[in-house]
Amino acid sequence: MGRAHAMAFATAARAFDLPVTPALELIADRTEASAAEAAEILGFRRSTANWRTIMADPSIDLVAIAAPNRLHAPIAEAALAAGKPVYCEKPLATTLAEAEAMTAAAGASGLPTAVGYTYLYNPMIALARDLIQSGEIGEVTAFRGIHAEDFMASPDAPFGWRCEPDQAGGALADIGSHIIAMALHLVGEVSEVSGTLQTAHPVRRDAAGAERRVTVDDQMDALVRFAGGATGALAASWIATGRKNQLAFEVTGTRGSIHFTQERFNELKLCRAGGGFTTILAGPEHGAYGAFCPAPGHQLGYNDLKTIEVRAVLQAVLGLPNAALDFAKALRVERVADAIRRSHRERAWIAL
Amino acid sequence: MGRAHAMAFATAARAFDLPVTPALELIADRTEASAAEAAEILGFRRSTANWRTIMADPSIDLVAIAAPNRLHAPIAEAALAAGKPVYCEKPLATTLAEAEAMTAAAGASGLPTAVGYTYLYNPMIALARDLIQSGEIGEVTAFRGIHAEDFMASPDAPFGWRCEPDQAGGALADIGSHIIAMALHLVGEVSEVSGTLQTAHPVRRDAAGAERRVTVDDQMDALVRFAGGATGALAASWIATGRKNQLAFEVTGTRGSIHFTQERFNELKLCRAGGGFTTILAGPEHGAYGAFCPAPGHQLGYNDLKTIEVRAVLQAVLGLPNAALDFAKALRVERVADAIRRSHRERAWIAL
Amino acid sequence: MGRAHAMAFATAARAFDLPVTPALELIADRTEASAAEAAEILGFRRSTANWRTIMADPSIDLVAIAAPNRLHAPIAEAALAAGKPVYCEKPLATTLAEAEAMTAAAGASGLPTAVGYTYLYNPMIALARDLIQSGEIGEVTAFRGIHAEDFMASPDAPFGWRCEPDQAGGALADIGSHIIAMALHLVGEVSEVSGTLQTAHPVRRDAAGAERRVTVDDQMDALVRFAGGATGALAASWIATGRKNQLAFEVTGTRGSIHFTQERFNELKLCRAGGGFTTILAGPEHGAYGAFCPAPGHQLGYNDLKTIEVRAVLQAVLGLPNAALDFAKALRVERVADAIRRSHRERAWIAL
Amino acid sequence: MGRAHAMAFATAARAFDLPVTPALELIADRTEASAAEAAEILGFRRSTANWRTIMADPSIDLVAIAAPNRLHAPIAEAALAAGKPVYCEKPLATTLAEAEAMTAAAGASGLPTAVGYTYLYNPMIALARDLIQSGEIGEVTAFRGIHAEDFMASPDAPFGWRCEPDQAGGALADIGSHIIAMALHLVGEVSEVSGTLQTAHPVRRDAAGAERRVTVDDQMDALVRFAGGATGALAASWIATGRKNQLAFEVTGTRGSIHFTQERFNELKLCRAGGGFTTILAGPEHGAYGAFCPAPGHQLGYNDLKTIEVRAVLQAVLGLPNAALDFAKALRVERVADAIRRSHRERAWIAL
Repeated sequence: MGRAHAMAFATAARAFDLPVTPALELIADRTEASAAEAAEILGFRRSTANWRTIMADPSIDLVAIAAPNRLHAPIAEAALAAGKPVYCEKPLATTLAEAEAMTAAAGASGLPTAVGYTYLYNPMIALARDLIQSGEIGEVTAFRGIHAEDFMASPDAPFGWRCEPDQAGGALADIGSHIIAMALHLVGEVSEVSGTLQTAHPVRRDAAGAERRVTVDDQMDALVRFAGGATGALAASWIATGRKNQLAFEVTGTRGSIHFTQERFNELKLCRAGGGFTTILAGPEHGAYGAFCPAPGHQLGYNDLKTIEVRAVLQAVLGLPNAALDFAKALRVERVADAIRRSHRERAWIAL
Repeated sequence: MGRAHAMAFATAARAFDLPVTPALELIADRTEASAAEAAEILGFRRSTANWRTIMADPSIDLVAIAAPNRLHAPIAEAALAAGKPVYCEKPLATTLAEAEAMTAAAGASGLPTAVGYTYLYNPMIALARDLIQSGEIGEVTAFRGIHAEDFMASPDAPFGWRCEPDQAGGALADIGSHIIAMALHLVGEVSEVSGTLQTAHPVRRDAAGAERRVTVDDQMDALVRFAGGATGALAASWIATGRKNQLAFEVTGTRGSIHFTQERFNELKLCRAGGGFTTILAGPEHGAYGAFCPAPGHQLGYNDLKTIEVRAVLQAVLGLPNAALDFAKALRVERVADAIRRSHRERAWIAL
Repeated sequence: MGRAHAMAFATAARAFDLPVTPALELIADRTEASAAEAAEILGFRRSTANWRTIMADPSIDLVAIAAPNRLHAPIAEAALAAGKPVYCEKPLATTLAEAEAMTAAAGASGLPTAVGYTYLYNPMIALARDLIQSGEIGEVTAFRGIHAEDFMASPDAPFGWRCEPDQAGGALADIGSHIIAMALHLVGEVSEVSGTLQTAHPVRRDAAGAERRVTVDDQMDALVRFAGGATGALAASWIATGRKNQLAFEVTGTRGSIHFTQERFNELKLCRAGGGFTTILAGPEHGAYGAFCPAPGHQLGYNDLKTIEVRAVLQAVLGLPNAALDFAKALRVERVADAIRRSHRERAWIAL
Repeated sequence: MGRAHAMAFATAARAFDLPVTPALELIADRTEASAAEAAEILGFRRSTANWRTIMADPSIDLVAIAAPNRLHAPIAEAALAAGKPVYCEKPLATTLAEAEAMTAAAGASGLPTAVGYTYLYNPMIALARDLIQSGEIGEVTAFRGIHAEDFMASPDAPFGWRCEPDQAGGALADIGSHIIAMALHLVGEVSEVSGTLQTAHPVRRDAAGAERRVTVDDQMDALVRFAGGATGALAASWIATGRKNQLAFEVTGTRGSIHFTQERFNELKLCRAGGGFTTILAGPEHGAYGAFCPAPGHQLGYNDLKTIEVRAVLQAVLGLPNAALDFAKALRVERVADAIRRSHRERAWIAL
């Protein structure tokens, strides 16, 4: 993810007409050696094994966090305390309490923040949001969505950090957060949830071959009610054999519907009542697309989405109008995820 | 639906090598005139305005029920009492109590019964079931399915019998039953559910233009746990703008996955772990397909599924091996639907 | 194909409100025994081993020909000479000369004729034709189409009647005729062609295991110019591995485009200039669909198309308005196919 | 296109482990001012209004040409004469004679060259090529492909440089070259062609509003025979309403088939004889994909393909093993295009 950040910062200045050219100034990693190597590969000027150095450095205008999840909170809080804007990878934190504290710190600081829910920066998602918010599909009555992958589908998939609960492990935290973020982004606040988690493979072997008990979820399903009146369901699974990045949803309205899947993220299927679904291909008329491709049908890639995200981050830092998703928005994701977890434990609907 | 039955009985004898040729002997309808007209159009020999006449007629070997839902129970019970096999349209009944009584009567009679869950007779569904039951996709970990249509999506769609709760109205009863039946058919018993119903348009106008309060659901979402350990979600909606007959599901297993939608019911998408989804087109190698089409890619239509269903009914009546879905199987659908309704009312998980 | 005819005649009377109910009166087959058996299975009243008997029978009002291709001409001409309307399977004949003679005989007789280009009776094709003829897609600039199957893709596929040139064998005659018929039906007269044929497997074994030289084509490609100014290309292949009934085309106009494939024949993809392709699902608003299915998304099957064709045949016989494709229309297909063959031999453009 | 080059050179060093980091040294444009502005935006160190300055500069190790088509030949020849490797945008030249001369100069110089047929650098195309060359799909019997866009579909689309024959204008030269390049890349040498060109809109208005006669083609269709025995067809159209970048093809083999469209270029559909088409999603197992995306389903974008191309260019310049498409390969494209043009004029098959 560090590399994706570095490439995006480098590309943003070329792709967009920005008033600044970001410099990759100082990178921190676990050891002096690994930090130096990362700096060399990614094009940073300096490196350090102590991330706190960054906070003390007056030449640093933005702290980007692509560290392990449990470091998000301490790094972000230190950066905010040092008066530096923060751009943090998702999830915001490994516990709701941490996320609340980070968001409070951000609010108190008045500094710009941003969280890397990269898929939301897709111009086709912006189009979906515009269609919804402008009333083009009428009143939204349902949102049904899933984030399905299969990298843990095999019982032989190893026990790694994603299986550690204190690392924000589990399908809900790791990838379910994407579909929750999407639902919130498109349909607005969730008012209550009823969810269930499942661990299909309760024992996995770690890299050393030792059997480890898995306490995180392999998949999640939840019913949701939105504050605006719509109902629906969310799901997350990392054992969905054959699905690679199926962040897919259908938003149903009284006058239209929208269907999308991240596996074909340069397309949006839009239906207007009385007609069928029309496949809209991404093109220069769709937001930032034209900064990357000369004509429709050429397609943005994942790194282009990251670059669009970085533009929003830079705009936020510069005080320009921007579409950055700040800590407060990311906190909403954590709250819904936490409510789903509570619902699972208590076998009850949980209000937000 | 009466016409679909009549066409299917006529076609079954030509499409399949059956030991009998069914005769359409006696049809009942509301009035003598309408019954006579139906007999003329559909090719029945005789007609009556009193369905009880059928039960008293010794020349009748099978009673097929395509009457309004609230008549299913009395007609079926009278037929069984008269010693006649019964082929009943779905849903089995308008209340769970009725469905229980009908199933008990069928069991006590020892007579063959069948219920018209036509979509389950699709050779591609038989293929899916075989793939699942033979272990081709490994252990099933999830089933997520929906039945979505849009004929009530407009607030202007009229209040009709489908809006009457005592007619088995509502999206859950009317079309949700299809996805419940599919889940049970493919994955087996459901052990518990957590569901929610929504009425998006609580007032509709009837044919006379009068405002009527709608007490049935426009859409349903439910979490399910299967006795075999899989989890998942079911949904039903008749306000899903743009969806016409989207009885769609994905069954996920540890070694493969299956995706299907009724809107393209001559196709099955099968993924084996490590590969992508393969589109299998219906062909002569798939069960009854060859009785209708000379070669792959020609496609079965809805009436062909009905004809395959009628073959099963006739085989059941004749005491031959058959795949008819009997009252006991249809009762399971009613039990799950009832549990979802209770879950909605009680805001709790309901065990089956 | 005889069975498809019999089922379609039986179903037509039930599906449609026709002023007559067709009776399957007399069937001819090679031997008395096979004819009697066919009569029994298909529901004909009488049978014969001599097809000329049919012509002499005053109770016969329509002769339907599903005999081997080389018998089409003699049977049709005898029927017309006997004053009987003729419904003939495609292709019209095995040589252009025969087809010309048949069409001349039909014209001279003034009798109704019809040819079984079943795919053209699809309501979605009627929709495509309406869209084109009404100018909805503007001026047609291109038609590109193919009919691809794979039943001869293996070098081990046996030498059968389809490999016999005097049986109208070869991919061009056998299945290429469908895409030619479609092009003519949708875009109108072809003015010139440049074509090429290929025999990928020049030797195949017959049922007895003997090696046989194949002189017919395994695939065909042709450039076409239409009288209306459009250009494009046609292809046919029975060695197209993986394709089962891919009768697919795209019609391009200055204001829209239409895409279709027979493998999903209940769908039409329509693009209007400035928008994307919209998937239109077959429904009751599309011609004869409603005679078969209660609601959209249910899907017609191949036999339903055959039944729609039979309705047109019966309407033609009864002197009612009808959409039957007569001998003159089928002759146009033969002329284009013949021109493609000549073009291949002469390595030159051939005008029609 | 200049921006795409600049971004690709900048990204290549970060995405790949290359022994050098390319420096954007000197950029030429029409005027000093525009060159300086381009240098600023794209990150070049120096700028010039005279491209010949580049050739004289000993610090330049590679000349990249993204100038108008008619300048490709003089710039490339000057660069080669100066001993500099050349990376040239497609098409190689505006006439076959020029292309021949450039290729001869490249051959004589012994210098590395590359041409920007960017779509061929797609890892999914590499996969297709591997499947074909390894015999996975058996002997190739057919290739049918098209490159269809619609930016000139409207009669109101303006007369611009793409309408100028001496700028390599016309659909065949501009975009048909992509499908020819693809055919050659996957199936090998073309032995003969029969083609036809059409100008659907013979008059267009230029930017000044003046009517201009269009002498280039709006669309092209051609039959092809490959040296290896396969046959097929190629098409190009820039008036294909609704198509945005439909560089699509199907390669048919005796044991399998491959289907692809650039509008979904992270997917390949592969059929093995006896099975259906399987959708393969791009992932880390596919060549350079992993340099850009952390997991499957994330998708490469157009600029990533350009970056992969630039890596090949740099590898070629460094004398490393590489997959760069050199002038000799691009010349083959020009020869096929020229043969199609001759075939159109002479209305005859043209051998290559």
